[in-house]
Amino acid sequence: MSEQLFTYQQLFNFTRSVFQKIGCSDEHADTATKALLSADLRGIDSHGVARLSGYVRLWEVKRVNATPDIKVIHETPSTAVVDGDSGLGLVVAPFAMQIAIEKAKAVGTGWVSVQNSNHFGIAAHHAMMALEHDMIGMAMTNASPLVAPTFSIDKMLGTNPICVVAPAGNEPAFVADLATTTAANGKLEILQRKNADTPSGWVQDKDGLPSTDANILKKGGALLPLGGDREHGSNKGYALGAIVDIFSALLSGANYAPWVPPFPAYVPIPAQQPGKGIGHFLGAMRIDAFRPAEEFKQHMDNWIKGFRNAKPVNGREKVLVPGDPEREFEEERIKNGIPLLEMVVEDLNKLAERFFIERLK
Amino acid sequence: MSEQLFTYQQLFNFTRSVFQKIGCSDEHADTATKALLSADLRGIDSHGVARLSGYVRLWEVKRVNATPDIKVIHETPSTAVVDGDSGLGLVVAPFAMQIAIEKAKAVGTGWVSVQNSNHFGIAAHHAMMALEHDMIGMAMTNASPLVAPTFSIDKMLGTNPICVVAPAGNEPAFVADLATTTAANGKLEILQRKNADTPSGWVQDKDGLPSTDANILKKGGALLPLGGDREHGSNKGYALGAIVDIFSALLSGANYAPWVPPFPAYVPIPAQQPGKGIGHFLGAMRIDAFRPAEEFKQHMDNWIKGFRNAKPVNGREKVLVPGDPEREFEEERIKNGIPLLEMVVEDLNKLAERFFIERLK
Repeated sequence: MSEQLFTYQQLFNFTRSVFQKIGCSDEHADTATKALLSADLRGIDSHGVARLSGYVRLWEVKRVNATPDIKVIHETPSTAVVDGDSGLGLVVAPFAMQIAIEKAKAVGTGWVSVQNSNHFGIAAHHAMMALEHDMIGMAMTNASPLVAPTFSIDKMLGTNPICVVAPAGNEPAFVADLATTTAANGKLEILQRKNADTPSGWVQDKDGLPSTDANILKKGGALLPLGGDREHGSNKGYALGAIVDIFSALLSGANYAPWVPPFPAYVPIPAQQPGKGIGHFLGAMRIDAFRPAEEFKQHMDNWIKGFRNAKPVNGREKVLVPGDPEREFEEERIKNGIPLLEMVVEDLNKLAERFFIERLK
Repeated sequence: MSEQLFTYQQLFNFTRSVFQKIGCSDEHADTATKALLSADLRGIDSHGVARLSGYVRLWEVKRVNATPDIKVIHETPSTAVVDGDSGLGLVVAPFAMQIAIEKAKAVGTGWVSVQNSNHFGIAAHHAMMALEHDMIGMAMTNASPLVAPTFSIDKMLGTNPICVVAPAGNEPAFVADLATTTAANGKLEILQRKNADTPSGWVQDKDGLPSTDANILKKGGALLPLGGDREHGSNKGYALGAIVDIFSALLSGANYAPWVPPFPAYVPIPAQQPGKGIGHFLGAMRIDAFRPAEEFKQHMDNWIKGFRNAKPVNGREKVLVPGDPEREFEEERIKNGIPLLEMVVEDLNKLAERFFIERLK
């Protein structure tokens, strides 16, 4: 499938214009664009500008509010609950993360659970806001129910990612950002385009039987929790996804489990919703609330070098540290541009026509 | 292999006597015994009284201090670092968890990183201290390096468990307690006794090649991170184990990565240790720092019932909620007794002879 290269600035200007056209303030359009495109830069193509038209469709059906009044509705010195007022998660999550950081400055740590939000792009973008403050950052979100817990046919959880970042000294920061499934939906889409099967342990069919069909979600199938099956620890991936749901939605008052509103605007929202919108959880811990930041960062450098210097399995160049692949993508794409599939470019140019902005080319 | 049944009280009296004989105060002996036996009650036989002689051997080689001066060496309103003074992790972790709870009472959440400790038994025991206060509890620990990160031959991490517990209303609490490996060492020991192979994705051999040999650790092999291999998301299990290491040891000043002191007393401590002892991380979040506890617990009941009522895969009775199997063990064992393998009873009776206490029979 053919691809076209765009500079970050080209995609930035385009995306910001679209967010402005649906009514976002300049400030919100900027914030949302940075969050969305951080996925394209970091090589998480499924979560970046390819989803822009999806966000617009959510706005069309009034599930995204372009001018939200985002606010704290409850707080203590180290915690807050934020109501996102149906805003873009791309805007709500940075707002909440900033509060977590301010609380960490004041009392050592800050923890913010968010209700009434929408999809927030990649978790790492929000968690990484903590790094410049010499803090550990965390971000989680629940998501559309696509995942069947161990022994379940029903889809009860989203891919519910967990992200934890920690600053280092001379080494780049530690950035772990992981869906709590064996593979996220984006990886299935890649296989669909190649007409290829999935490895074992990624998906099950509508009866809960093992499958390797990359199109199985369209046939009533489900993604599997990290581990794949019980024998390989899927109960652990399921538990991790559940923890994300509890922190993001049960603490905040958002929807949870199968009631989380789906990302595709054409999929109806489940009846009898127990909460508001989707939920996130953001956290920040000041390093020097535990030990001097310089000391921590020296040991992080030592830790990272230890892993980089571990003896690799035959045929492998090196052992990676969480965050390495995404950082390499970012360096390469800032230099050489961001590749978009032709079908993504076409989709974006439909938005251009609709909103009377300049086409991408 | 033949087993013998003992009442909880029998094992409690025996274990407490042993801890007293090595010099623990009555209070510490009580605390340690409760923590250790919680594993036997909950069906985690590998982490319970079967390890008592292992703790005694650590005391013999002066790696466990029976009369530690456990203290806070740094703190902020929501954080603390605890120095365990080489005490039993079974005593140090409850001390640290109590501080996390007190801080959560004061400012909403409490987070305690611990250095200079030893193995703490099962994480769930400590995290569950939060439940009676209507708090979410968390516990993590690093451990002896037995796990090879993705693409690595070298063993760089322990089985580094993550435990998160949350109170419910009428339903029992949510208790997720998971090693960040596909399978923990205890499961290998069960297969060794049966002379059986492991499933795929549990272990690798000394060259980093896939193996199904349950004895492979004795031959230079390693446990694998949750996921098993890269194609099945082992990079995620590896990242989770790394997060536990950072929270438990990099924040506290404990040893990390391959430098964590091993549990078997005969294995030498690695040279050039970067920290003190092993590290833990304990956390508590007051529910009503986010929303009224009653409201949260009603939604937890709804969440739990949703999962229990999910349609199970053919041949399965029901979908489980994290904590269900261990709670069922506990109910059954309190009623009918705790089964110990003959070899474990013999091992304990050697302790009885040595310390002139009554034999188990």
